[in-house]
Amino acid sequence: MSDPGNDASSIANVVGLGLIGGSVCLALRRAGWSVHGIDSAEGRAQEALTRGVVDAVGISTHARVTFVATPVATLVEGVRWALGSTGGVVTDVGSVKSPVAEAVDDPRFVPGHPMAGSELDGLEGADASMFEGATWVLTPTASTSDEAFSLVAEVVSSLGAEVVALAPSSHDRLVAVVSHVPHLTAAALMGVAATRSDEHAALLRLAAGGFRDMTRIASSRSGIWLDICGENRTAILDGLDDLIDGLRSMRTSIDEGNTEALRGRLDDARRARMNLPSKAGAIEDLTEVRIPIPDRPGAAAEVFTLSGDLGVNIHDFEVVHSVEGDKGVMVIVIRSEHVDLFRGGLLARGFRPATHPLS
Amino acid sequence: MSDPGNDASSIANVVGLGLIGGSVCLALRRAGWSVHGIDSAEGRAQEALTRGVVDAVGISTHARVTFVATPVATLVEGVRWALGSTGGVVTDVGSVKSPVAEAVDDPRFVPGHPMAGSELDGLEGADASMFEGATWVLTPTASTSDEAFSLVAEVVSSLGAEVVALAPSSHDRLVAVVSHVPHLTAAALMGVAATRSDEHAALLRLAAGGFRDMTRIASSRSGIWLDICGENRTAILDGLDDLIDGLRSMRTSIDEGNTEALRGRLDDARRARMNLPSKAGAIEDLTEVRIPIPDRPGAAAEVFTLSGDLGVNIHDFEVVHSVEGDKGVMVIVIRSEHVDLFRGGLLARGFRPATHPLS
Repeated sequence: MSDPGNDASSIANVVGLGLIGGSVCLALRRAGWSVHGIDSAEGRAQEALTRGVVDAVGISTHARVTFVATPVATLVEGVRWALGSTGGVVTDVGSVKSPVAEAVDDPRFVPGHPMAGSELDGLEGADASMFEGATWVLTPTASTSDEAFSLVAEVVSSLGAEVVALAPSSHDRLVAVVSHVPHLTAAALMGVAATRSDEHAALLRLAAGGFRDMTRIASSRSGIWLDICGENRTAILDGLDDLIDGLRSMRTSIDEGNTEALRGRLDDARRARMNLPSKAGAIEDLTEVRIPIPDRPGAAAEVFTLSGDLGVNIHDFEVVHSVEGDKGVMVIVIRSEHVDLFRGGLLARGFRPATHPLS
Repeated sequence: MSDPGNDASSIANVVGLGLIGGSVCLALRRAGWSVHGIDSAEGRAQEALTRGVVDAVGISTHARVTFVATPVATLVEGVRWALGSTGGVVTDVGSVKSPVAEAVDDPRFVPGHPMAGSELDGLEGADASMFEGATWVLTPTASTSDEAFSLVAEVVSSLGAEVVALAPSSHDRLVAVVSHVPHLTAAALMGVAATRSDEHAALLRLAAGGFRDMTRIASSRSGIWLDICGENRTAILDGLDDLIDGLRSMRTSIDEGNTEALRGRLDDARRARMNLPSKAGAIEDLTEVRIPIPDRPGAAAEVFTLSGDLGVNIHDFEVVHSVEGDKGVMVIVIRSEHVDLFRGGLLARGFRPATHPLS
């Protein structure tokens, strides 16, 4: 898939040309795809054509892959429409995955969510390099075919993203903690400061870097967050409850002057923050793992889910087909230090991996 | 004070050579001061001398100004010792101001707090440009003399900082909201994520930029925060209560599907975040305001407090003395659009300002 540019199978559709949809278009075009795009907003697709974001207005029924990048509230409808209108694989970029994964039952559908964004809105903020180094979660369902999963994993991997496969419900619980609850918290903090600033004009001038960093995400538009809070309600309520418990417990420690309890909490947080995996894709000691895809459904997704469970980063991914037209071989690049762990997991699940150090 | 380098009055002391103390040393040296420094940690002052952070080890009894940059817990002791050991003006850089302002009653003492920092620790992180564009709060007490206040305001202004004067208790309430509570919140968020990551290794890989920004300050050492939570207990408890209330109220809106209430909160937060004053010191339309210092105590501090109350940024500050040896003239540079507001306030308080546009 490294050069999709020379045949009829190099066409991709993008439905919904906002910040993420527009960025998908630009990244696909840079990777050699011919991109067809549409948007429900009048004139938006034409504008995208003028700006060089898409190659054509409309969607191609021959497209190998269609990305649905409509707002969360119209996602199910958009995905169903794309499946009905094209013969290829369909994926989406919605921030919440269970509702769409449960509503759509089709081997050609691979639910997805790129963990990337920008403070900008709309086509103006679209950026071909938005997904470089970003994590792109795929949440295959029981119906998703191996071929569909592998194709989407390969395409988003070629856009520079690292693919992580998760069950839809796991995804939703995890993003509640690393994205949705933090967003609400930034808004709540900003709310406390804004109330006080009515009393004292100097307040916001005192806001140094830490406060600016913490509240930056509160400056995004509310619309998408209202949808997300509706769609991922249960996981967000759980996350908020945990956060409120944590804050109340700190409050008690401070109130009672219990320095040791507070120290324990702050030290634990410090350690966890310092262990946050870096996204920097350093040129490091890498190993190629080749895994023949067995003739049973869901195998490709299973390999990715396993890598996520084991905490093994996938640096690069490709499916290689032999001339015999078999199911192909997954070629996965990981850090050499993770090879034994990953091999062990693969063997335990019945895969037959072969490893080749790249350096 | 633009060139303090050519006479005996150009000596400054810095007591405590950590991140902030070291940065004060470097910034003072760059501004032409001869800097003497000491630290309670064995060998630290010698190391500072070797690194070129100070000009001499020890303190000079002739220093015009002494910065006390010891940990919050030993601040009162450090300030008293500096006042007893030198004849000049003494200021400090502690993050909480009421305790030291209440404990020390001396016309030569000007409590202060630069709103700046770094993710680095100690002398290694010290940086001559740390205070450029930063807000430096001074919290003069009823005892602080005009001369002492003006000198400190002028010196920290020459280090690139914008001076804001506040009552000590106002400062403490405001920093609880923009610094102390956000720090505890970052730690609490990191705590929620760390607990879940024990269950799922993929979690922290999903952490995109927003989460990283929000938890960055949780990576600083706990020691200073334990002191701060002790010293600024009441204001922090108030801020935490407000934040917990805000989060609970969002939780209720989400639980009940009350989209309008949630939208109102998110939109308010967005507006407030977008209105956060920028620190960028753009070359803009500036006006010089010259104010003769009247012959009554606390006048200089009053001018600064007024600017803070009115939300008028002070870009530059200097005291000019005439040959007759009067109390001098404060020369303050502000944005031209604020001139009428500031003049009105000054006239109402009995000052006699004269304004001169700079462009």
